[in-house]
Amino acid sequence: MERNIAAVILLLFSCQAAAAARAGGVRRPPTLARHYASSSAHRHRHHVTAAGDASDGGVSVPPTVQYETRRYTQRLDHFNSLPASYATFQQRGAHLPVRRQRDRHRPVHQQHTGFMWEAAPRFRAMLVFVEHRYYGESLPFGGAREAAFRDAATKGYLTVTQALADYASFVLSLKANLSAPAAPVLVFGVSYGGMLAAWMRLKYPHVVMGAVASSAPILSFYGIVDPYAFYDRITDDFKREQELLRRASEVVGRSLRCARNKGRPGIAETGISVWDIPSLLDNAVAEAAMTDYPTPGFLTPLPAYPVRSMCRAIDDRQTPAASSSSGNEYGNSSTTLLLLPQQVRDAMNVYYNHTGAAACFGAAEDDDPYDGWNWEACTEMMVMAYGVRDGSVLPPSPSNFTDVVDDCRKDTGLPPRPFWIETEFGGYDIANVLNKSASNILFFNGLRDPWSTGGVLKSISDSVIALVEPKGAHHVDLRFSSKDDPEWLKQVRVKETRIIARWLKQYYSDEGIAT
Amino acid sequence: MERNIAAVILLLFSCQAAAAARAGGVRRPPTLARHYASSSAHRHRHHVTAAGDASDGGVSVPPTVQYETRRYTQRLDHFNSLPASYATFQQRGAHLPVRRQRDRHRPVHQQHTGFMWEAAPRFRAMLVFVEHRYYGESLPFGGAREAAFRDAATKGYLTVTQALADYASFVLSLKANLSAPAAPVLVFGVSYGGMLAAWMRLKYPHVVMGAVASSAPILSFYGIVDPYAFYDRITDDFKREQELLRRASEVVGRSLRCARNKGRPGIAETGISVWDIPSLLDNAVAEAAMTDYPTPGFLTPLPAYPVRSMCRAIDDRQTPAASSSSGNEYGNSSTTLLLLPQQVRDAMNVYYNHTGAAACFGAAEDDDPYDGWNWEACTEMMVMAYGVRDGSVLPPSPSNFTDVVDDCRKDTGLPPRPFWIETEFGGYDIANVLNKSASNILFFNGLRDPWSTGGVLKSISDSVIALVEPKGAHHVDLRFSSKDDPEWLKQVRVKETRIIARWLKQYYSDEGIAT
Repeated sequence: MERNIAAVILLLFSCQAAAAARAGGVRRPPTLARHYASSSAHRHRHHVTAAGDASDGGVSVPPTVQYETRRYTQRLDHFNSLPASYATFQQRGAHLPVRRQRDRHRPVHQQHTGFMWEAAPRFRAMLVFVEHRYYGESLPFGGAREAAFRDAATKGYLTVTQALADYASFVLSLKANLSAPAAPVLVFGVSYGGMLAAWMRLKYPHVVMGAVASSAPILSFYGIVDPYAFYDRITDDFKREQELLRRASEVVGRSLRCARNKGRPGIAETGISVWDIPSLLDNAVAEAAMTDYPTPGFLTPLPAYPVRSMCRAIDDRQTPAASSSSGNEYGNSSTTLLLLPQQVRDAMNVYYNHTGAAACFGAAEDDDPYDGWNWEACTEMMVMAYGVRDGSVLPPSPSNFTDVVDDCRKDTGLPPRPFWIETEFGGYDIANVLNKSASNILFFNGLRDPWSTGGVLKSISDSVIALVEPKGAHHVDLRFSSKDDPEWLKQVRVKETRIIARWLKQYYSDEGIAT
Repeated sequence: MERNIAAVILLLFSCQAAAAARAGGVRRPPTLARHYASSSAHRHRHHVTAAGDASDGGVSVPPTVQYETRRYTQRLDHFNSLPASYATFQQRGAHLPVRRQRDRHRPVHQQHTGFMWEAAPRFRAMLVFVEHRYYGESLPFGGAREAAFRDAATKGYLTVTQALADYASFVLSLKANLSAPAAPVLVFGVSYGGMLAAWMRLKYPHVVMGAVASSAPILSFYGIVDPYAFYDRITDDFKREQELLRRASEVVGRSLRCARNKGRPGIAETGISVWDIPSLLDNAVAEAAMTDYPTPGFLTPLPAYPVRSMCRAIDDRQTPAASSSSGNEYGNSSTTLLLLPQQVRDAMNVYYNHTGAAACFGAAEDDDPYDGWNWEACTEMMVMAYGVRDGSVLPPSPSNFTDVVDDCRKDTGLPPRPFWIETEFGGYDIANVLNKSASNILFFNGLRDPWSTGGVLKSISDSVIALVEPKGAHHVDLRFSSKDDPEWLKQVRVKETRIIARWLKQYYSDEGIAT
């Protein structure tokens, strides 16, 4: 094994080229990837990495850290032998060798260092970011987005199983190039990337020796998860802010119903197109619940606890008339109507424009033709986050999976495959299955995160472990750490580090590797 | 769960439409499937099953047993979303419900009952034979062989991963149709089917709860197995017949060298084309080693212990002059030359014409255009059984993988993928990997079987178990049992039954199913 490389940490990465959002009537699965889209967009404005060329495509590394971008030649389709499948494309990886991490002239500031960055030197691990096919610059058909996303005949190679096989080939090639065939490879991922990480360990245990799957809703599929659970959790998050709850959710709900039903005069002057409000607010509300972090965003300009901030934004505008309004459900109370646009804008400002730098914010990009997640979510990755019950923080929207399927069929021109992921990766009876046929998977979930409703929340065995944090949000564990982190968050990271250390110790022992 | 079905036993089945054999200069992987091809051809001549329509396509069931043939609609390509992949084909399964097994009027004769047939009623299991895509009648592109095997653009969907995904879909659909979602499914397979069974349990533990992989050379791949090991074992098998060894191997070897180098007068009169001798004899020798069973074939017309029979066939013709011949290596001793054709024919008769019914036997069908195994073996299933050392029972043939790859490339028009199977399914360090991430796999290997050189020969854990029998041949454990079976073979079957019973007991306990 190459001197100094005791392990390889692989981060599965699928940053969007642009934001995804859901189309008109039917609720699309929100923000699993859209979340990163926004973050990435912010990053691009604020940071330029010190070395390498990956910064412009979405691979996010803290400033001042040197890394190397490598391209790995991938087969277009791993699973059939059609002549067309032998075409290749370049998959991008960003490598941070052990030595560089140690020798770097300007140590990365503590605040800039995420869990993997901290863990890598501790475990003498090389850190590798590897990009998902069809995201960032890892594009088949010559490397141009227009060609890769031309139509179903080109987009069709964007599937989970192909991406996992890419990673397996990537890892084996990397280890061969490093002359480190026995180096343990740990795979990390958050959200969709966390699902990939868990599935990678399930399907390729001979390639990766462990997986950290943070906020990975691998159970968010039809027939396994309650389709209302996602928005129920969001409502719960907003309800937690007791003092603000009732008025806030009433006002937000009414504003949406209002905006949906009529283009009220006066709303335009806030700079928000009335037709954009539902998806913008839905996005802001879901994102705030997902990213309800205890500290302000470093790479994303969000305040600490954005759910509370949004509630306060509404509350600050709240008038007695509005709060006690008993007008009809479309908000015909004139007081309420006058306040609505400002309240909505203020609430959304928390998410979209915390720094105040944005003069306006436009419609979510529903129709981004180069959005990989939209394609995945309508072909096979049909994660369930659709239904909104009466009394929720957002207006009710019954879960109707037939509509979802029909809508996806219109979008892609192909029949969606809602059962494929369960066929390929399982989900039912997961405790008994993984207890017998899996090891070394760490599932983290924060219960404020609506995606935790599809997460693995109970430990299954000694090495298939669920860490659950009631106050946690979406992959808060792997965020850049901060001196202001609450104690529970510090403890989560300590636990994760210990678990990984135990896996590695066992691995070195099993393989007879001296450490 | 449907009354009386306590389990489902699935037999993965890939009977060839016709025999495969290797092309001229380069050794093709022998007989993993060819073996079944011959068996199947024999069966078709000798048996008509009592019910169902599967008998004419290769699904072999004992006579007098009733079963139902079902067709299951499969997707053409499971792993991408190209519009063409949504095409479907009909996969064939033969079902033997529990009730029928119990109620059948004429009990199947003991000798006709293979291990699965005996095991199924014991475990109250439904027995299902499911055919591999592109084999038998499970043909895409309309169901005609000509269409399915037209060219690489149609044959390209014949891959291991697609076949496994077929099985996963098949099982989930079957369980849904039976209203038996919790019924444990055990998967059985022999040879290539055994590899599929083991991989099925590795990749789809949520679909099948255990696998019996008989004589499954999952380690017979480049860089893992010694490429000479396969023919070394064959030589050992023939050498075991001590008294016949030296002369037999000398004569066989010389006869092949002779036949290869010159078309001797006199050979034609034996009814064997001289150019066919190498592949015919290679096939006969390898098959004899694989099927060196302790009892005569019931469905295949072979004597007990065919290796010994072949040695004797040569020995009976042997003259003192030939045995003591010290002529040059091309057998220029005239005595030897005169005897050669008869000896070779007699030896081959043991394999090709044991019953004496065949008036002649022709060239192996090198170029069968509808042979699925040929395609698989040259695209991804590049099992290693190439090199023949000096001093072997067959003429030496150095292992040269480059030649193998080149030859395959010429055959298929595509670059072979010798590392793909290892990337997808592993193989290196298998004990450590399966110890942590697998359970309920039973590997049987008989050491007389040359394919055992690529088998899992050591138990890995309490439930990943290797049964190894020094006197055993290719999947002798799952053969139809007989009163003449030696004690060791009876014990193997007892052990297998106990292991399966333990898995099922544990499964019912884990799932809280009353038994």
